[in-house]
Amino acid sequence: MDDILHASIAQIAAQIRKGEISPVELIEGTLGAIDRYEPQLNAFITVFHEESLERAREAEAEIRNGKDLGPLHGMPIALKDIIYVQGTHSTAGSNFFSEESPQFDAALVSKLRDAGANIIGKTNLHEFAFGVTTENPHFGATANPWDTARVPGGSSGGSAAAVVAGCCAGALGSDTGGSIRIPAAVCGHVGLKPTFGRVSVYGVLELAQSLDTVGPMCRYVHDVALMMNTLAGYDPRDVHSENQPVLDYTEGLDQPIRGRRAGIPKQHFFDNVDPEVERLVREAIKVLEELGVDIVELDLPSAEAGHEVTLTLLMAEAGQFHQERLATHREDYGVDVRELLEDGLALSATDYVKAVRVREVARREFSQAFEAVDCILSPTAPVPAPLRSTHDLSGGSESNRIRPRLTRNTRLINLLGLPSISVPCGFAQVGSSDSDEGLPVGLQISGPWWSEKTLLHIAHAYERATSWHTVNVKREA
Amino acid sequence: MDDILHASIAQIAAQIRKGEISPVELIEGTLGAIDRYEPQLNAFITVFHEESLERAREAEAEIRNGKDLGPLHGMPIALKDIIYVQGTHSTAGSNFFSEESPQFDAALVSKLRDAGANIIGKTNLHEFAFGVTTENPHFGATANPWDTARVPGGSSGGSAAAVVAGCCAGALGSDTGGSIRIPAAVCGHVGLKPTFGRVSVYGVLELAQSLDTVGPMCRYVHDVALMMNTLAGYDPRDVHSENQPVLDYTEGLDQPIRGRRAGIPKQHFFDNVDPEVERLVREAIKVLEELGVDIVELDLPSAEAGHEVTLTLLMAEAGQFHQERLATHREDYGVDVRELLEDGLALSATDYVKAVRVREVARREFSQAFEAVDCILSPTAPVPAPLRSTHDLSGGSESNRIRPRLTRNTRLINLLGLPSISVPCGFAQVGSSDSDEGLPVGLQISGPWWSEKTLLHIAHAYERATSWHTVNVKREA
Repeated sequence: MDDILHASIAQIAAQIRKGEISPVELIEGTLGAIDRYEPQLNAFITVFHEESLERAREAEAEIRNGKDLGPLHGMPIALKDIIYVQGTHSTAGSNFFSEESPQFDAALVSKLRDAGANIIGKTNLHEFAFGVTTENPHFGATANPWDTARVPGGSSGGSAAAVVAGCCAGALGSDTGGSIRIPAAVCGHVGLKPTFGRVSVYGVLELAQSLDTVGPMCRYVHDVALMMNTLAGYDPRDVHSENQPVLDYTEGLDQPIRGRRAGIPKQHFFDNVDPEVERLVREAIKVLEELGVDIVELDLPSAEAGHEVTLTLLMAEAGQFHQERLATHREDYGVDVRELLEDGLALSATDYVKAVRVREVARREFSQAFEAVDCILSPTAPVPAPLRSTHDLSGGSESNRIRPRLTRNTRLINLLGLPSISVPCGFAQVGSSDSDEGLPVGLQISGPWWSEKTLLHIAHAYERATSWHTVNVKREA
Repeated sequence: MDDILHASIAQIAAQIRKGEISPVELIEGTLGAIDRYEPQLNAFITVFHEESLERAREAEAEIRNGKDLGPLHGMPIALKDIIYVQGTHSTAGSNFFSEESPQFDAALVSKLRDAGANIIGKTNLHEFAFGVTTENPHFGATANPWDTARVPGGSSGGSAAAVVAGCCAGALGSDTGGSIRIPAAVCGHVGLKPTFGRVSVYGVLELAQSLDTVGPMCRYVHDVALMMNTLAGYDPRDVHSENQPVLDYTEGLDQPIRGRRAGIPKQHFFDNVDPEVERLVREAIKVLEELGVDIVELDLPSAEAGHEVTLTLLMAEAGQFHQERLATHREDYGVDVRELLEDGLALSATDYVKAVRVREVARREFSQAFEAVDCILSPTAPVPAPLRSTHDLSGGSESNRIRPRLTRNTRLINLLGLPSISVPCGFAQVGSSDSDEGLPVGLQISGPWWSEKTLLHIAHAYERATSWHTVNVKREA
C-alpha cells in the first residue's frame, strides 16, 4: 500500500483499472496515511473521512459499470483550505470563517469533481495564504516531512507535506508570490504555478488580485500535466481568466527536448544562494545540457527591482481586500499578517503607480528575453527548508525579513504573470538536519505566458533523466 | 487658396502632383492663414515660419525630382506642444521647459518626417494636457473658431482650432480622457484616439501612463486614415506599445457598411445630454441604420463606475509623474492643475487598487459586449462648446466640476484602452451663440481593441452620407 500511496496518478489509475486496487482501498489507505502522519505533520485542517469513503464507493461502482471518467476518477486530491467547497468550512488559515460555509464550489473543485476526483481534505496554510515562514497562529505549524523540525514552505505547506507523505495523490495550492513553488522545492515534489489567468481563481479566497494563481502540486511532472488537463480553461466568473486555447498537457511529454533553449539569468536569480543549492541547480543545468538543451546567459537587469515592487503590489492589494475586516477585527489577525496588511494600507497611490511602472519595464524585458529562450532556469528557493524554531510567531518583523530571501526567485514570476514549475533536483547536505538524505532542493523552470506545456515537457525530461523522485518514494515508503 | 486650405489631404496632395499648387505656395498659404486667425484663435504656441518654408522648398524639389514620399509629402502638420521636436521648445503648456529643448524627436515626429510631412508649428493646450475647460494660465485661451467666445475643448484645443481654421492640413493631439475627441467634437472635425499601445507615445510628455494615447486630428475621415498609415506601429521605446499587425487604414474605406452592428448603450452615455446634442446623435444613428447598420441596445452597467474611477487613476498617475516637480515648484502650476495633482498625491494605494478592480470588471463587460457589436455609438461630448467666460481661471474647483460632464463619454474609453473616433454630426442651435450655423456636435464611434480600421470605415461611410464637412468648409472659407 505504501508503494501505491507514493506512486504517480497514472500508475495508480492503471492499477485501479487492472483491478489491483479498488478505489475504496485507495481511499482507505490514504486515510490511513493521514491518520499515521498527521500527529507529526499537521498537514490538514479538515479531512473528509466519511464523505471520501462514500465517494470512493460511488467511484468503484461507476468504473465497474463502465462510467469511467479518466485518470483522476477516484483519485484522492487535497485542497489548500483557501479553496471553496460548498457546505464545508474554508478557513483560509484564519478564525474568521468558522461560522460560515461557502455556498458554492470553486471553479476548479467543480472541474475536479467532473473528472471524478475524490476531495480527501483541506490542507493547512499560512493565515490568509500570506506568509512563507511563520506558523499558522490558529491551526499550528505544518512540519516538513523530511525533517519535522523544519518548515514545509508556504503558504501551501499543508498541500506539499500531504503530497510528499502520500496523504493524497495530488493537491491544489495557490501561488501569489511563490506559495506553490517554494513548498514544492523545500518538500521535494513538483509544483506548477500556471500563467496568470490560465486556471480560474473563482471560489479561491483572494490574497492579491493581480498576482493570485492556483495550480497543481504532485509527486511527478506527468501528474501535474494530467491535472492541468482538467484545471486549465476560460471562466467568465474570474475577471482575470483569459480565453486562450487549452492544450493537451500530457501529449508529447516523452518527446526529446533537444534544441530547446534555456536562459540562465546573469542578475538576481543566483545571488545570495546557498552553496549546496547552487551546486545542485548547476548540476541540473548540466543534465539539461546533456539532454540537448542550449544553455545561454540572459541579461535581466530589471529582475531585482521587479522583485522589490512585487511586495508593494501584494501588500497594497491584500490591504485593500482586508481593509474593512481589519478595521473591525484587528486583534483576530496574527501578528505578521496584520503587520503586512497595515503596511499595505499605509501605501500611497504613488507607491503603487511606481511599482506598476517597474512591472511594465520588467514585463517588456522578459518578453524580449523570451524571444531568445524557451525558459529561464534558476533555483526555486535559494535555501533548503529553514528550521521552524527560528521562525516562530514571536516576532512578526523578524520573520517577515526572512520572506524576501525565500521568495527571491518566485515573487518576480508572479509580478509578470508567467508560468513556472518547480521540479526536485536533489538533496542538499545540511549539517544541522536529522534527514539522512539531506533536504530537497527545487529547480525552477519559468517560461513565457501560456508556455505550461513547454515547461512540463522540459521538467518531465529532466525528471526522467534523474532519479530524485525514486529517492523521494523510498524515503516515504 | 482658402478652398485648398480646407480641402482634404488627398485633395491637396493631388493638386500638388497636378501642379495646381506647389508645396511652397501651400505652406505660404497656411502661414498666411495662421497670421490671419491667430489674433482671434491663439491656437499656436510656436510657428516654424522660416523652417517650414525651407522644408517646403525641399519638398518641392524632391517631388519635382521624383522623390515622392506620398500623400503627406509637403503637407503642413501641426503638433500639440506636448510632442517633442528635437531642438525646439516643447512647453507642454507649462512654464517649466522654457530653458530646455528635447534632444530627440518623438517617435511620431520621425514617422511624419519620413513621410515628408512639414511640421508647421506647435499648438496651444491645457497646462500639462490636464484640463478640458479652463484657459492655459501661461499661454492664454484658444478660441473656438465657430464662436470665439467659446472654448475649443481640451486639452488638444489648439490643434483642433488650427485644423478647422485651415492653419494646417492635419494635426496631432494627445488623448488621456478625451483630449482629442472633445475638441474634435466641439470644433467640428474628425479626431481618432487609437487603441492604447497602437501609436508610440515615445517623446510625448506623460500625463497618465496607463491612459495616454496620441492620434490624428483632421478635417476628413480619409485624412485620419492616411495619417494612421504613417503613425501606427510597434515601438520598443514605448513600454506600452504593442506588436500588433499594422493595417492599411485607407484601403476599403469606400466599401458599403451594410451588416455592421452598432450598439447603443442603455446606461451612462445618453444620460444628462443636451437635447440638441441628443437630437443630432439620434439622427446620425438613423443615417447609419439607413446605410444598413444593425442597431442594437447594449447593456453596460459598469460604465458609470468606470467613468468615476478613470479620474482616480488619472490623478494618481499624473500626481506620481509630477510629484518631485510639484514639491519644488508648486507656485508655478496653474490653480486647477495643481489642485488635481495634489488630490492625486493624497490618494492611497487602496484607492488605486479599487479603481483597478472597476477597470477590470468594465473591461470584461465591454469585451463581452463587443462579441455582439462592431462599435458603440454615443455623443462625444454631451454638450456643445461652453462659453469661455464661465470657465476662467479664477476658481479651480468650479472649473474642475465641469470636467466630469464634458469627459462623460470619453474618459471611460481611455480607462479601457479602446479606439474611438469623433466625427461631426451636425450643428446644435444654441440661442446664446453668435454662430449662424450653430455649434458643432460630434458622434463618437468606439470599438474593440485594434479596430481602428472598422471605426474609420463606419465614420467614412457616415461622413459621405452627410454633408457636415461641406458646411464646415463654407464657414471657414
